[in-house]
Amino acid sequence: MLRSHNCEELRLTDAGNTVTLCGWVQRRRDFGGMSFIDLRDRYGITQLSFNEDYNVELLNEARSVSREFVVKITGEVTERSNKNPNLATGDIEIVVNTLEVLNPSLTPPFTIEDDTDGGEELRLKYRYLDIRRNPVKEKLLIRHAANKSIRNFLNGSDFVEVETPYLIKSTPEGARDFVVPSRLNEDQFYALPQSPQTFKQLLMVSGLDRYYQVVKCFRDEDFRSDRQPEFTQIDCEMTFVEQSDILGLFEKMVRNLFAESVDYDLGDIPVLTYADAIKTYGSDKPDMRFDMTFKYLTDVAKGYNFGIFDNAESIIAVNASGAASLTRKQIDAITNYVKRPQVGAKGLIYCRVNEDGSLKSSVDKFFDQEALAKWVESCNAKPGDLIFVMSGDLAETQKQMNDLRLHLGDLLDLRTKDTYKACWVVDFPLLEWDDETGRYHAMHHPFTSPKQEDFDLIETDPKNVRANAYDMAINGMEVGGGSIRIHDKELQQKMFDLLGFTKEKAKAQFGFLMNAFEYGAPPHGGIAFGFDRLCAILTGTESIRDVIAFPKNNMGRDIMIDAPSPISKEQRDELGL
Amino acid sequence: MLRSHNCEELRLTDAGNTVTLCGWVQRRRDFGGMSFIDLRDRYGITQLSFNEDYNVELLNEARSVSREFVVKITGEVTERSNKNPNLATGDIEIVVNTLEVLNPSLTPPFTIEDDTDGGEELRLKYRYLDIRRNPVKEKLLIRHAANKSIRNFLNGSDFVEVETPYLIKSTPEGARDFVVPSRLNEDQFYALPQSPQTFKQLLMVSGLDRYYQVVKCFRDEDFRSDRQPEFTQIDCEMTFVEQSDILGLFEKMVRNLFAESVDYDLGDIPVLTYADAIKTYGSDKPDMRFDMTFKYLTDVAKGYNFGIFDNAESIIAVNASGAASLTRKQIDAITNYVKRPQVGAKGLIYCRVNEDGSLKSSVDKFFDQEALAKWVESCNAKPGDLIFVMSGDLAETQKQMNDLRLHLGDLLDLRTKDTYKACWVVDFPLLEWDDETGRYHAMHHPFTSPKQEDFDLIETDPKNVRANAYDMAINGMEVGGGSIRIHDKELQQKMFDLLGFTKEKAKAQFGFLMNAFEYGAPPHGGIAFGFDRLCAILTGTESIRDVIAFPKNNMGRDIMIDAPSPISKEQRDELGL
Repeated sequence: MLRSHNCEELRLTDAGNTVTLCGWVQRRRDFGGMSFIDLRDRYGITQLSFNEDYNVELLNEARSVSREFVVKITGEVTERSNKNPNLATGDIEIVVNTLEVLNPSLTPPFTIEDDTDGGEELRLKYRYLDIRRNPVKEKLLIRHAANKSIRNFLNGSDFVEVETPYLIKSTPEGARDFVVPSRLNEDQFYALPQSPQTFKQLLMVSGLDRYYQVVKCFRDEDFRSDRQPEFTQIDCEMTFVEQSDILGLFEKMVRNLFAESVDYDLGDIPVLTYADAIKTYGSDKPDMRFDMTFKYLTDVAKGYNFGIFDNAESIIAVNASGAASLTRKQIDAITNYVKRPQVGAKGLIYCRVNEDGSLKSSVDKFFDQEALAKWVESCNAKPGDLIFVMSGDLAETQKQMNDLRLHLGDLLDLRTKDTYKACWVVDFPLLEWDDETGRYHAMHHPFTSPKQEDFDLIETDPKNVRANAYDMAINGMEVGGGSIRIHDKELQQKMFDLLGFTKEKAKAQFGFLMNAFEYGAPPHGGIAFGFDRLCAILTGTESIRDVIAFPKNNMGRDIMIDAPSPISKEQRDELGL
Repeated sequence: MLRSHNCEELRLTDAGNTVTLCGWVQRRRDFGGMSFIDLRDRYGITQLSFNEDYNVELLNEARSVSREFVVKITGEVTERSNKNPNLATGDIEIVVNTLEVLNPSLTPPFTIEDDTDGGEELRLKYRYLDIRRNPVKEKLLIRHAANKSIRNFLNGSDFVEVETPYLIKSTPEGARDFVVPSRLNEDQFYALPQSPQTFKQLLMVSGLDRYYQVVKCFRDEDFRSDRQPEFTQIDCEMTFVEQSDILGLFEKMVRNLFAESVDYDLGDIPVLTYADAIKTYGSDKPDMRFDMTFKYLTDVAKGYNFGIFDNAESIIAVNASGAASLTRKQIDAITNYVKRPQVGAKGLIYCRVNEDGSLKSSVDKFFDQEALAKWVESCNAKPGDLIFVMSGDLAETQKQMNDLRLHLGDLLDLRTKDTYKACWVVDFPLLEWDDETGRYHAMHHPFTSPKQEDFDLIETDPKNVRANAYDMAINGMEVGGGSIRIHDKELQQKMFDLLGFTKEKAKAQFGFLMNAFEYGAPPHGGIAFGFDRLCAILTGTESIRDVIAFPKNNMGRDIMIDAPSPISKEQRDELGL
């Protein structure tokens, strides 16, 4: 090694030793006859000291190096007079004997400090410099720790990592595939996997019992703010399991992950049915960090000649505890928020519970104190609380109330960054109706099994069939999902029929899986976690881009290497493109 | 779980307990009033017993299940009268109370036994059934253990796993890229990485210090018997290192791997220079399981009026120790072997050292006993040995002698399957001349640094410049290779010049790396191991296909899922193809 120690490991007990360090110049401070350099590497910072009394030539050399120069020094570990308790190495400094510049550096296009002056595009272009900054580096290190924690847990639970292929077959259901032209098979294409779903099911048919893989998946979507064309999945599958086994095991895995990688106790993970989640939170991925659950005023708020309520299918309230002090202006801003087209509410009604117990609502014309008292009772509101109410079509109002609830959570600081709350949502509907295509789509995917007790609804009332499907959400974000799969060929065929696959199409696309079901397919189920999303949550960042070493921008471009890019005529010719 | 235990864990101490097992019917044996079923899962086999005295209905049910049916049983663990010491569960059997068929099975297209009757194509098509067979399953389990061992070692040595992107930029040097059309960027393409080389170098520039990744790489080659279009690499890079550090650390990693995954002590790994490897073995990946090193007779075998020798640049011998008993017929077969066009030798001369010390050669006309004695002395041959000699152009003869040496190793059983010998080969030439293109190619890749002491040869004598490059070979197969990289922009530019890159081309393809070198790039180096090849060696198989769960065939096709395949017109239109 070019160094004897890294920049984090020297302590007072090393004083007197001669050491060699390599690293980057974080900063240099010049005083009268002396200079100090903070030398940085991945592990930490060590102070280098130069003094004209000791070696004036060396001092001059030191003064010729600038930020981000790579240097190698030897010197003596010495106790610092002016100790820095915030630095692991803060008790010592190196009195330098020799200094070698291993590589100079131009002035970086943005400052390499925790708080930088660089905009996102610039930092993406020079991502290799951005990673030198602690907040970026730390996220990659936490990602590594998370990867290790998950692997250790799964390895210890008899899971076998199996690498499934990346060059597979296009199945143009759902999202778009990225395709790869085959040079040796004219006019034919591989596809990059959107998930290893069918392969992991085949591994269960093969008897491997428990499979996992940390695996890249690909989706050619129109990019939105927080999508990446390639993303990483923690993909798992188990044989001879029931839903409760999967929930139990992966609750452990995720609790373990939070404990090991960010030292956080996630606590027990509650299980909600999809129906309850929608009823209580208006969302299948509720943010459980705060309560503010939905209360239904449909029974108590009708019949007061307030047409909007009287004509509404549902009237839903939330109680913003302690929010009575919100000003009229603030309430107007909230009203405008829910009236934005993205939320789409027609209006917002409030009822303030004053400290003296009196009630003040925006519909006092229709509702007297007695009528409003029923709202307060339904919402369990106390003096100082503020009740918000919306009404209309049930599903629409639930959706709008969810938006409102999350918005209030933000405003009232109830969605704190350093708090994590997870939940399971189970019993998802098997199918959802798609108006555009005029047929059912699988809510999870076509391999998800219906609940046995709902089997007879498949023919008569498909949309009320519940699936053995489950999602995990943390802080209102879906982080994982899975299901108990179909392992019976007839049921799988019925499912394909329901989804409008012709027999030919089902055979062409999934014939190998249907075939496999003929040869002793065991009951099995699994789950996949979005690893980028998990890491974003663990590191307290909004964007998955922050936890990806070399992310693409919103147009799917890697602006550092400038990809995608044109290819040569020879390449196109060879591929017949 | 549908089961209380797996099929491997019950022992005599469990006798009397009621258990539930799930698994596949490996075989059924029927006797007068009883039947036995071997129930199989990933972990092992447990015997189920059915008896008409106990339950005649159940016996009949049992007799209706066939091979590969998936069943669930409950029953009582009972001591076996007829114990099977070859089975972990061989002391017990389950006297079955209930039997449920979870899924029936058609008769598999080949027998699911250690020795099967299925041909390779058939087994690839039904790969999910082939994996049920122990020899296939075990290889995947060893691969998993190997992956774990390597990760644990690297995690414990401060390496950080970082996922680099799969959708990158095409750099049409060397092998062909697989490309991926970009829908959102018209007429532009991503490429799948042949290796994460430039990204791992950028991670060193970013200061991550030690990086690794177990990563899929892609090469669109004309398929040969043992190539796969996608393969797995153990990819590593370190900062502030010298070659010896890398050799030392990764020797430990590989020794550790063999110890942990197949319980084998690989011993010290010798280091040979490229020059010595070629001189002694005629190969840069010598099989070190046996000696039979080259001896040069050029000085002692000329001047005997034997024109072939007298006109040859070099005369090279190997001593096949103890092979004097080979018959004339066997020697003829060896001669024919080296005269095949694949080897291309003109002929093969031998000299047998008889037990009485007399010498018998195929060129006795020219060489008397005294002349032959010089060969014997040079070869350190003893009575019972057989010397083989070839002559001609030095490099050609070395290559042919390497073929002969390996062939003799096979014939004389010196290349035993359960022995592993590794070596490092270092100091590779930086460049190799390519007659076809009339220019130099990088022997490793364009980022490999030349040896400092050879710097002045770069202009004057490029082909004799040695590189800071190293390979590891095990049993004559290259398993890994790497180099200390260039970290200086001028040197990198000079290298591109030497390789015939125009400035524009270098900038278009590697501008981001050249740019990165301007901002404090540290000295760094790394290595990549071919994980498929390593696993093939660990599991004693010839083909990397055997250690890949879902391999492609020689035409790059996955015949199980039938990929590649045509895509829809809509897909092509969207991609502008």
